[in-house]
Amino acid sequence: MDLSKEYLQQTVYELNKILDDSPKILRPVMEDLKKAKGKYIRAKVVIETALALNKDLVISNQEVLKKIINVAVAVELTHLATLVHDDIIDDAPLRRGVESTQSKYGKKVAVIAGDYLFTKCFSVISNNNLTNLENFSKAVSAICAGEAYQLANNKNFDLTYANYKSIIAGKTSALFALSMYGVGVELEEREVICERLGRAGYYMGLVFQMIDDYLDYSGSNEKAKKHVIKDLKEGVITYPLIYTFQKNPELKKVLKENFSLENITFAINEVKRFKGAEITKNQAKKYYDIAIKKINNSVGEENSKELVLIMDKIYNRES
Amino acid sequence: MDLSKEYLQQTVYELNKILDDSPKILRPVMEDLKKAKGKYIRAKVVIETALALNKDLVISNQEVLKKIINVAVAVELTHLATLVHDDIIDDAPLRRGVESTQSKYGKKVAVIAGDYLFTKCFSVISNNNLTNLENFSKAVSAICAGEAYQLANNKNFDLTYANYKSIIAGKTSALFALSMYGVGVELEEREVICERLGRAGYYMGLVFQMIDDYLDYSGSNEKAKKHVIKDLKEGVITYPLIYTFQKNPELKKVLKENFSLENITFAINEVKRFKGAEITKNQAKKYYDIAIKKINNSVGEENSKELVLIMDKIYNRES
Repeated sequence: MDLSKEYLQQTVYELNKILDDSPKILRPVMEDLKKAKGKYIRAKVVIETALALNKDLVISNQEVLKKIINVAVAVELTHLATLVHDDIIDDAPLRRGVESTQSKYGKKVAVIAGDYLFTKCFSVISNNNLTNLENFSKAVSAICAGEAYQLANNKNFDLTYANYKSIIAGKTSALFALSMYGVGVELEEREVICERLGRAGYYMGLVFQMIDDYLDYSGSNEKAKKHVIKDLKEGVITYPLIYTFQKNPELKKVLKENFSLENITFAINEVKRFKGAEITKNQAKKYYDIAIKKINNSVGEENSKELVLIMDKIYNRES
Repeated sequence: MDLSKEYLQQTVYELNKILDDSPKILRPVMEDLKKAKGKYIRAKVVIETALALNKDLVISNQEVLKKIINVAVAVELTHLATLVHDDIIDDAPLRRGVESTQSKYGKKVAVIAGDYLFTKCFSVISNNNLTNLENFSKAVSAICAGEAYQLANNKNFDLTYANYKSIIAGKTSALFALSMYGVGVELEEREVICERLGRAGYYMGLVFQMIDDYLDYSGSNEKAKKHVIKDLKEGVITYPLIYTFQKNPELKKVLKENFSLENITFAINEVKRFKGAEITKNQAKKYYDIAIKKINNSVGEENSKELVLIMDKIYNRES
């Protein structure tokens, strides 16, 4: 088995151990999270960054490997915590087609489960470099700030592209940035390298979120449409719509009136007409290019193959 | 000004700085928390424990003092985070007679605000002894576990005294225990002393929560009654009721039927008849005695005056 797979298995094993170790009433939530089997994309970024930066050290030093796995587990725990709390924030009845935690077990269990997962993240990382603990704390603050900023801008039809970028910089990029920066810290790379890694992760996160938002409007399937309708009802405005507002300011007025299914369908069609989704993907491509440059810049072009493959998957994914 | 007051002022100053520094949309929540002006009882425990353990060191070493203040700020942040999330968990429209965060600003803001406060706790404490970071993480896990256990036992009329103690050990004692244990760690006391401090805090927390539960049933005022009614509707069962169930098992059947106002009023009267509240306070007195012993045991009788005064306030408070 190749190293990446082996390390990912270790990560998932440690992650599941923590989920299994949760208080009994939270266990069904944790079982669902296990079953949902995310793609562990953030953990993969951690592992590939470590292998790209200093494969020899990671292979030869069990203690270093343990710390890298801890970072991978901690970013996934943080991600899971935000998923569970997001369901409350979004009042989501479904998450990826599956009934959401809060809808299935109630808001109470969802609140506690999320808190528990956040706490465990800090508990795992407290075995590592102290700087990373501060970094995790800052990243989680940034995620909260991003969520808060998004909430503050609900139904703000004058949301600019810069505002939108601020939101996704917090809610998505912060954790990707940490997934790379944090590895630099554990491998005791120079600060300048750590910074470059952090910037690479930042752009990777922007691409990830913009492709998410692209998929919402590009997909012809019912699931994507449902997601858009839910988001719009909540007043969440993303780039495909921001762009379309610029092209047809009338659309703003229509949506300001109300979010009837008729108006939402009109909005979706307008986004289609002006190619708002495609423009979003084009914009994401610019960040993709920057991310690739930053990756090469930080780990060296000769070591960047796997990270570039991850970037390609993020950019080209269809769901 | 005496030292205790000075240090508490510093704590409140640092705490408010963090609240002021929060994302804009969370600011009203933080303003409310500031206005609510808790009694900072946990911060006081931290400060008095430090002065009792090694006053000279705390006075003479700015760095040590800073770390003690950090512990005080962090326990208060954790406490505030649990208050904000508890409102969601309890679906509370009111907290101490004031409209709760979730009812005033919505669940979404409440979730993010609580997450933000938890994160800031770890951020503050990451400047301190690494062991304390682990301790905070464990304490927050214990709080979550206590909340989860309470939730799992909602409407469990067969809740035993031991179950009840497990719940309050998590949801209340864990943070009091840390408030004392954590100071021992920062002052580099021997592990045996830290352990004793932790046990003292544990019993202090039990007294604190049992007096809370005593006050719910002993008060003749409307506020206490409203609180009992709300708790009972949620199915939260505390010692005054557990004791009364033992004396009159019929009461279980009545409440199992339904939580009509009539049945709840009957329950409150039964608790009065069997002196369930007074019995709870008597039980708390036993823990009070143990706590005093443990305090003397850990900081020395000659230094324990202020901590004993805090214990007295906790035990004798009427609201």
